[in-house]
Amino acid sequence: MKKSVFYHAGCSVCVNAENEIVDLLGHENVEVVHLGEEKSRIPEAEELSVKSVPALLTPNGGVLHINFGASMEDLKA
Amino acid sequence: MKKSVFYHAGCSVCVNAENEIVDLLGHENVEVVHLGEEKSRIPEAEELSVKSVPALLTPNGGVLHINFGASMEDLKA
Repeated sequence: MKKSVFYHAGCSVCVNAENEIVDLLGHENVEVVHLGEEKSRIPEAEELSVKSVPALLTPNGGVLHINFGASMEDLKA
Repeated sequence: MKKSVFYHAGCSVCVNAENEIVDLLGHENVEVVHLGEEKSRIPEAEELSVKSVPALLTPNGGVLHINFGASMEDLKA
């Protein structure tokens, strides 16, 4: 199975969502990307239609925006 | 494994999210509740801290609000 990718920015909303998602999907099925620490990956996330974090990119290429934490614009600041 | 519960209201945002979630978790692991058709379950959802739909209640009791579609207040109208 192709991995999902969980994009987040380390805020408490993100961390709670991360724990739930990793529990649900299994650690081995999710790549976790901290966009606050890896700002070089923000363009990649934007191309994939990530509008805010936390967000889950599914293996289908769909994006689920979860528990609004921060917009992509906020992360670039 | 305890089931997750996916609350939605039949809007297109909800349906897209439902398809992604059911694909990710497996049909047998998710109960799908359409709060537009089952308004009697709105109080249950509110007690579980569902603020908007679509939302996923995890087996831990956590609520993930996904791709904002409609607030609980809108559903009561």
